[in-house]
Amino acid sequence: MNMKKYKLLLAYDGTHYVGWQIQPNGNSIQHILQETLSILLKENCIVIGAGRTDAGVHAIGQVAHFQTSYTGALLPLLKSLNGMLPHDIRVKLLEEVEDSFHARFSAKSKEYHYHLWLGDTIDPFFRLYRHHMRHSIDITLLRTALSRFVGRHDFRTFANVNTQIQSTIRTLYRIDLIEQEGGYRIEYEGEGFLYKMVRNITGTVLDIARGKRSLSELDSLFSAKDRRAIGIAAPAKGLFLQKVRY
Amino acid sequence: MNMKKYKLLLAYDGTHYVGWQIQPNGNSIQHILQETLSILLKENCIVIGAGRTDAGVHAIGQVAHFQTSYTGALLPLLKSLNGMLPHDIRVKLLEEVEDSFHARFSAKSKEYHYHLWLGDTIDPFFRLYRHHMRHSIDITLLRTALSRFVGRHDFRTFANVNTQIQSTIRTLYRIDLIEQEGGYRIEYEGEGFLYKMVRNITGTVLDIARGKRSLSELDSLFSAKDRRAIGIAAPAKGLFLQKVRY
Repeated sequence: MNMKKYKLLLAYDGTHYVGWQIQPNGNSIQHILQETLSILLKENCIVIGAGRTDAGVHAIGQVAHFQTSYTGALLPLLKSLNGMLPHDIRVKLLEEVEDSFHARFSAKSKEYHYHLWLGDTIDPFFRLYRHHMRHSIDITLLRTALSRFVGRHDFRTFANVNTQIQSTIRTLYRIDLIEQEGGYRIEYEGEGFLYKMVRNITGTVLDIARGKRSLSELDSLFSAKDRRAIGIAAPAKGLFLQKVRY
Repeated sequence: MNMKKYKLLLAYDGTHYVGWQIQPNGNSIQHILQETLSILLKENCIVIGAGRTDAGVHAIGQVAHFQTSYTGALLPLLKSLNGMLPHDIRVKLLEEVEDSFHARFSAKSKEYHYHLWLGDTIDPFFRLYRHHMRHSIDITLLRTALSRFVGRHDFRTFANVNTQIQSTIRTLYRIDLIEQEGGYRIEYEGEGFLYKMVRNITGTVLDIARGKRSLSELDSLFSAKDRRAIGIAAPAKGLFLQKVRY
């Protein structure tokens, strides 16, 4: 049968999900998309995402692909999808792609944003989308600590991975700290990210910025190559998968 | 006993509440504030709000007052309040006011914002805070229709009130239509607003802007002085009590 390949651009509020990836128990974004597409297309449908966002992590620009024998118009399919999906998951674009396209393996870079609220009282409309830092932090120190992560490094310390996996070397192209309402956002852009890498890096630089750990420790943290060398990851709700570039 | 009067500046996400005002069944903002203050202050506490927002209506700048024999520091009280209140209600400011201050009767003007999403697919992060218009609308027509409401008018047609109440004449100082991400917001500023007046006006001008009703009907709607002359109110979730001026 002649199968076509389609690309989805997705936004979702991760608050009520166990994350992107299908889990034995709990609602995942991937599972809901697959179920909805399978009903609409009347055939089993596998959806592959660009990045596996964790429980509570949000997406503005997640990308996914699926294959189907469906050959009908795309706009009605997009509208039916959004009509059936829960309101906290939206398909922003649906388009046909080359057979060689793969949401994960074709990605050239990914961009994650981590949002911090630094004010005393967090705006209730941001309560699910910001990490509310209750300690005062040194922004200059934060900026300096972040700059240490740009470039090609072995990020093993900053990833929740077992020792079996392949290389933990990754390249971060850019990290920017940008002021915004209520605080700052950290923009991370890189070729790829290890499991929990953004939240682990963010947790570590926040520990430095609040004086819990010193900037000079960073080198030894990198060379430790052991997740246990660092503290807790920054909370999921502050993190957004912003954009995937191909 | 020497009572002091305090003013609260409040923001809340109205999604999960029956509205500001205490109702026989269901959670109201006023009830939760009174319960929380009564526990903290160890005395019965009545909280009076500037405006009675409906079920599902949000607030960025609601104002309320209460009296108490408490004479302690304010910052710890503010922090305890926010510590005990649900995360969708935040107290932004707490300050002592003159005994003559009344959150409702001392208000010089109120500002409400009504937020419209006009794009095909609503950003999931705005799903509870925008009215998603699925019909295409004529912005020039919307602007013209809105301008008809500025000034001093009898708004009886646009209020859900019984005929027993006092005057339904009110003055709207300003109505602005402002472009923003995903659509527009309508800013209403006036000396005071009748029950459901903002949502009824918004529903009516949207009916005009989408061609369901003609602009020339507006005069007869005003003179009808009957709520039944107009269509349905715009949905609560698009409405924010933005600011109360004293």
